[in-house]
Formats: sequence, structure tokens, C-alpha cells
Amino acid sequence: MAEDGKPRHRVVIVGGGFGGLLAAQGLRKAPCDVTVIDRRNFHLFQPLLYQVATGGLSPANIAAPLRSMLRRQKNTRVILGEVVGFDLAAKTVQLKDGERVPFDTLVLATGATHAYFGHDEWAELAPGLKSIEDATEIRRRVLSAFERAEREPDPAARQRLLTFVIVGGGPTGVEMAGAIRELATQTLKNDFRAFDPASARIVLVEGHERLLPPFHEKLSRKAKSALLRMGVLVMNSAVVTDVEPDHVLVKTSSGAERIDTETVIWAAGVRASDLGKLIADAVGGVELDRAGRVMINPDCTVGGRSDVFVVGDMAHGKYADGRQLPGVAPVAMQQGEYVAKLIARRLAGDVSPAESFRYWDKGMMATIGAAKAVAQSGGMRISGFVAWLVWLFIHILYLARFENRVLVLWQWFFNWVTRNRAARLITGEAATRPADPRRDGKGSAG
Amino acid sequence: MAEDGKPRHRVVIVGGGFGGLLAAQGLRKAPCDVTVIDRRNFHLFQPLLYQVATGGLSPANIAAPLRSMLRRQKNTRVILGEVVGFDLAAKTVQLKDGERVPFDTLVLATGATHAYFGHDEWAELAPGLKSIEDATEIRRRVLSAFERAEREPDPAARQRLLTFVIVGGGPTGVEMAGAIRELATQTLKNDFRAFDPASARIVLVEGHERLLPPFHEKLSRKAKSALLRMGVLVMNSAVVTDVEPDHVLVKTSSGAERIDTETVIWAAGVRASDLGKLIADAVGGVELDRAGRVMINPDCTVGGRSDVFVVGDMAHGKYADGRQLPGVAPVAMQQGEYVAKLIARRLAGDVSPAESFRYWDKGMMATIGAAKAVAQSGGMRISGFVAWLVWLFIHILYLARFENRVLVLWQWFFNWVTRNRAARLITGEAATRPADPRRDGKGSAG
Repeated sequence: MAEDGKPRHRVVIVGGGFGGLLAAQGLRKAPCDVTVIDRRNFHLFQPLLYQVATGGLSPANIAAPLRSMLRRQKNTRVILGEVVGFDLAAKTVQLKDGERVPFDTLVLATGATHAYFGHDEWAELAPGLKSIEDATEIRRRVLSAFERAEREPDPAARQRLLTFVIVGGGPTGVEMAGAIRELATQTLKNDFRAFDPASARIVLVEGHERLLPPFHEKLSRKAKSALLRMGVLVMNSAVVTDVEPDHVLVKTSSGAERIDTETVIWAAGVRASDLGKLIADAVGGVELDRAGRVMINPDCTVGGRSDVFVVGDMAHGKYADGRQLPGVAPVAMQQGEYVAKLIARRLAGDVSPAESFRYWDKGMMATIGAAKAVAQSGGMRISGFVAWLVWLFIHILYLARFENRVLVLWQWFFNWVTRNRAARLITGEAATRPADPRRDGKGSAG
Repeated sequence: MAEDGKPRHRVVIVGGGFGGLLAAQGLRKAPCDVTVIDRRNFHLFQPLLYQVATGGLSPANIAAPLRSMLRRQKNTRVILGEVVGFDLAAKTVQLKDGERVPFDTLVLATGATHAYFGHDEWAELAPGLKSIEDATEIRRRVLSAFERAEREPDPAARQRLLTFVIVGGGPTGVEMAGAIRELATQTLKNDFRAFDPASARIVLVEGHERLLPPFHEKLSRKAKSALLRMGVLVMNSAVVTDVEPDHVLVKTSSGAERIDTETVIWAAGVRASDLGKLIADAVGGVELDRAGRVMINPDCTVGGRSDVFVVGDMAHGKYADGRQLPGVAPVAMQQGEYVAKLIARRLAGDVSPAESFRYWDKGMMATIGAAKAVAQSGGMRISGFVAWLVWLFIHILYLARFENRVLVLWQWFFNWVTRNRAARLITGEAATRPADPRRDGKGSAG
């Protein structure tokens, strides 16, 4: 209730990622009641998940309780819940436990998950990297493979255990490949007695003819040569055609190749949250793109509804020239801010048509190992150590929104100086049954 | 093989906790090959698990890879495996996957787990605190209870969600009670909209007439009054007779009491590792005490075997006057060191009877909240802030063996200044299905 007794405008934001969080924060002074609904109790800094997956950072270093981030914002409440439907006539969001949350304005920002291009059966064998649980599961598999290799007398089986295949040569794939290679050659250097960890083979498989396809060609080349110098095997124009417990099949221009491995990491495809289809159906006449993203209007609304917004990775937005916006954090953040401003403007009584959302592209970057990166911004392209410093600076700047920023910086610096990765714990239920960590069920954790 | 071609003496240490780790480290210069076998890839600093359970520290802050701790010790290898049997005639240890590891000298140090006094059915409802997974599971339950309370319209149901029962008033119980109370009153202070987190009831149930029974009576009283001042409800001479999903029954001197709660934490009983019985049976004629601990000889050997040692929480050792040694880290550490010295002495050719193990009791301590503790050493007894500084100093000193000591110190200081707990993540599989986190299965993680 507002002070004058009229019910306050209710904004419901589904998803506490980059888009949802920025939308909520943008409404902190607006005369409305904001409800943020998320399945998890924390905001996750996804771009650093690969650091958790390779034992460099702890989950808590890159996640902060949503509630805590929004605690001082008195018009906002956070509820832990899973949205399973929309009733646009009644203007409610339905939660899994049956509760219906009423809204006047709805903002959807539930992101994306990995896609296996019609091979969902690969999901168990080749986990992707979207959640904390994904990251700790990958960490468990990678570290367990080294542990099992230590006890494996057969050289062929050992080499299979020491082979890591990363599918997808975008930023995540490049970062994972570099980080696992460094884990093997530096962090684990003196840890094993039966083999030299540097004998680990890290294979990066990319369907496109070059790595980091959206980057400038020169940076793709730089990234590739940096990875090759580190000892990563890079396969371009190579498509994974089968994933089995003990090998993957890869089709290249020169034929088919079998790679014996027990650890496959999926960094290839993206599929929008299932809520995209639900909202498209509820609104009616709204299309989805091939990855399930909702085709949004220039002001981030959907179809004919001025009260329903979709932002971030679950939306298919466009540049002014009609090209598709990339699925990166800055787009989600800027869309979240844009939508918050738009809602606040309307609440202030200005109902004139909104200016279209314009993405301010500050560029993109990817790290390759501990102290190298490639970055481009407009016409500027940098690589190597300087690019890495820029990468570090920008990430620290964002993490500054978290309360534990100093810790992350310190952990990082510490890792960098010592080449250590302190968080390399094998946790989760399966971890307590070491015989065959791969088959024994689900891991997660710590 | 030694340089002279003779096979080297093989020491197999099962368990990488305090006892096993110290035994291994004590043998670093001895002319033998050491194999440390553990189910987990890390050494865990159990006394700080309660900090993980209440979101103050991340698992990696209190765990370090065993392999990494022993990396510079060239005569030592670490294998990840689960011991399931002993063949003392063949002098081998059998692993779950069928491998047999030969030994000349065997050191067992696999610790203890919680005991439910014949009520194993309570384990699901009232998790104990022995592993990283236990800690993240408790963290998940405690934080989820607050989350569910935020969405619970019924005041009685909400109060039930906001009631936390800790069974057992030893150091772990006292520490948990204080930490959860502080989580509620300080860390979560402004986080919720539907209730005041300070309304959370933390009930500490202890069967003995005072808390911390092994401590001096004066310190027990101090601990109790400190907890009461913080707002913890303390029940003495109270025994839990039933644990159900929505309540516990407690029998006190004045009758039976029902406490409505959905979050129960077990800090009451201890049972030695099952390997205790296995080794006792293998050696023959060796007794176990009521908690399954192996009755050891004064030199930590078992029965008539001079080549089999049992140390730490799985052993029942004695003071010179016949009283039982407590199940605390310093005993395990000193026994580990003692056994290493004994083995080294024998390898050097000195086979004269060993002096009995003598525990050097430096005292004991327990924390109560963020800046209070009780400690006693010999006739000296301290409490309050000074005791807490001593506690902090001693724990930091031990953690200095870990590589991430500076981080832990920093995290602690940071928590202490800000009253924040940065690691309060709800993770694990069940966490992604929020409807009823309690019933949905196993959580763990992050």
C-alpha cells in the first residue's frame, strides 16, 4: 500500500541473474513494490564459473545471496520459488507449489541452459557449465580423472583418463581448455607419483574454422596460437558426432577421428529457459528462435503486451541494423536497466512510446590461461598480458557489487603468484565412493 | 626399492585426517615408502566445519588437497580409495575396487562418525556434522528454513520453520547454537520482509545437567549464560526421545516437551569408523568399547601385532591413570607423531620396547558466537573475548599448515567486522527444487 491508500504498482521479476538483478536495482527508488523470484538464493557471476570448475575459486567467491544484495532496497522482496506458468488474464505468475504471485508488470530474465543439438543423452557424459552444481561436478570429474590415473597400471587406460575433451571453442571452451591445461602443468606438477600431469591431453573441439568465432580473425588466431603454445590440442572445423563413456567421435574435414577419453565438457550450445515458450504461448503470436529465445519488441516487451518484458539470454533482441544481439552479460544488464527506467518513467506518468533499447557494445574478451587474454572493443583489439589486465579489471569491477570482492581479488592474486588452486576438492555424494567416480551418480558441492 | 636394491619398508596409512596426516609427515625422512589411502582427496579441518554449516567459510577454506600437502615428501604417495578389508597373513589392505595394497607396517586413522544411539532412522531428519557434505547439507537446511518462512503465511508454521533444535551440548553443539543465533540476529538482520529473523528460536538440548560436560563447571556456567544472553534456549538434563519431520520430543526432569521444528542438527553421539571392528576381528582377541573404538596398547599397537597401529578417534587410548583419552584433534595428532617416531626408530634398528604414548593435554576450548569462548588448560580457565583470541590464534596456527591460511584469516576478520557470512549459498540438487527442500532428497555442495 502506498501512503495515500492506493495499492502500489507491483513489478514481478523472475530470475536474479544479470538482467533481473539490474532491473530490480533500477527500480529501487520507483514508487512500486518489487518481487524478485528465483529458484536459487544467490546471484551467480557466471563468467567465472570456469574458475570454480577448475578449483581456482570457491562457489561463494562468485555468488552472493540475492537477498543480501537487495536488503537495503525496502520496496523489494525476494522469494525462493520456481515459476511454472503465467495467467496473463488474471495477471499472476504461478509457482510450482501452487502459489500465485500477482503482478502489474512482469519482467522475465531466467537466462539459458546448455543445448546438445538433439542429443540430450550426451548430457550425463558431457556436463555443461551453467550452475554452481555444474561447476563442482566438472571439478569432481576432472580431479577424479587424475586420481584414477594415479592408480591405473595400464598405460592406454591411463592416457584415456588423462585426456580431456572440451566441446566448443567460444569463450567458455577456450577458458576451460586453458585452465585445465594449467591445472595439469602447474598446479598438479608435483602431486602424482605414477605419471607426469603434464602428459595430460586437453583437446578443444570447435565446429567453426576458427576459435572464438564472433571475435576478430586476428584475435582468433592469437587465441589459438596461445593455446597451442600451452600444449592444448585445438581441432577446428570439427564436429562431435558421438559421445560415449570411454570416447568421443569427431568428424573433421579429413575424416572421422576417435578420441579416447572419460572426461568431456560441453561448452557448445545454448538453449533459452523453458519459460520462454510458456510466455510466448501465454501472450500468443510470439515467435521463438531456434534456440528457444523469445523474439522481443524493440522496447523488450513481448507481442502486444506492454506489461510483459523479456530480457537477457532468454530474449532474442536486435541491433539497430537487425543483427541479433549476443548472449552475453552486458546485454542482459543493459536490458535490465533499460526496462527498469521504462517502468519508472511510466509510473511517473509518462506513457509516451519508449525509445528502443540500444545495446552499447563495450566489446568482448576471453582469457587464455593465467595471464593472457584477447579483447576487442570497437576497432581496438588487444591480446596477451595487457588484455588480461583489462579482463581482470573489468571482472573485479563487477565483482565489486559483491561483498566479498577483496577476497576474490586476493584469492586470484594468490593463485596467480603460487600457481595454486586451493579449491580443488572432490565433493558430492559420489566422491565418497571413489571406485568409479564417473558412473556412481551425481556429484555436486563444495 | 632402496638404493642398495633391498625392497624398502612399506608403511600404509589409512585415513588422511589429523592422525594419518601427522603420521605421514613424521615419516618424511624415514627410509620407507609411505602410502596414504583416503576416500577423499583432501584433509579436512573438522573443528571449523560449523563455520561452513553456517555460511561463514567456504569448504575450501578448511580443506586442503592431501596430495598437495604431501607433494614435497618424495617417499610418500597418496591414493584415493576405500579400504574394505585386511589380510594380516598376506599383509595387505584390500580396497573396494579389488586392489590389494601390501604393507609392512599399517597405521589406521579413519576417525569417527555420528551415532544416533540406536535410532539410525533419525539420521535423515537430524544430520550430524562430520563431513563437508554434512556441513553444506546443514547450511542448506538452515538457510532454506528462513527462505520458506518468508513465504509462509501461517504464523504457527512460520515459527516452526524458524525453530532450530541442536541436540548435544558439547563444543560442536555450543558452537552451532551460537553461530545460528548470530546468523539470525546479525547476518540476516535486514534480509526478510515477512518476519524479523531475530524471532528465530535456537534450542540447545543437552542430556547432562550442564553444557560442555568435560570442561570445568565454572566454564560450563559461563558458556550457558553467554548463550542465554545471546538468546539461545538451553535445555539441560534433557533427552531427545523422538525426532519427526515437524517436531522433536524431549524428556526433561519436569516431564516431556514437544518442540515444533523442521530443522534438527545432531551433535550428540560419536561412533568409531567401521574399520575398527574389521581390524579388531582380523587381529583377533581385540575389544571395542561401546562407541566401537579399538582398545589399543599403550604404544598404539593392537593386540599382539607390533605392525598394526590405530590412532585418533577410532582408538580407545588411555591416560597414565587409566582414564580414557578424549576424542579430540590434539590426541590424534600426537598419536600420529608418536607412531611415526616409533616406526622411524625401528627402521633405524632400535627394536627395544617403546615408551608408552603420553598425551600432552594442552587443554580444550569452545567458541560461543563471534567473539567469545571458554578455554581451560591445566588449572587455568579463561572465558570471554580473551579466550576467543586464544582460540583464534591456535586455530590460525594450525590452519597455517594449509596454503590458504591468509585467506581464512581474512575471511574471518571480514565476517567479524561486517557480521556477514559470505558463503551462505543453498546448493545441491534439491536446492533447485525449492518447494519443500527438506523432503526433496539429498543436498550437498558449494
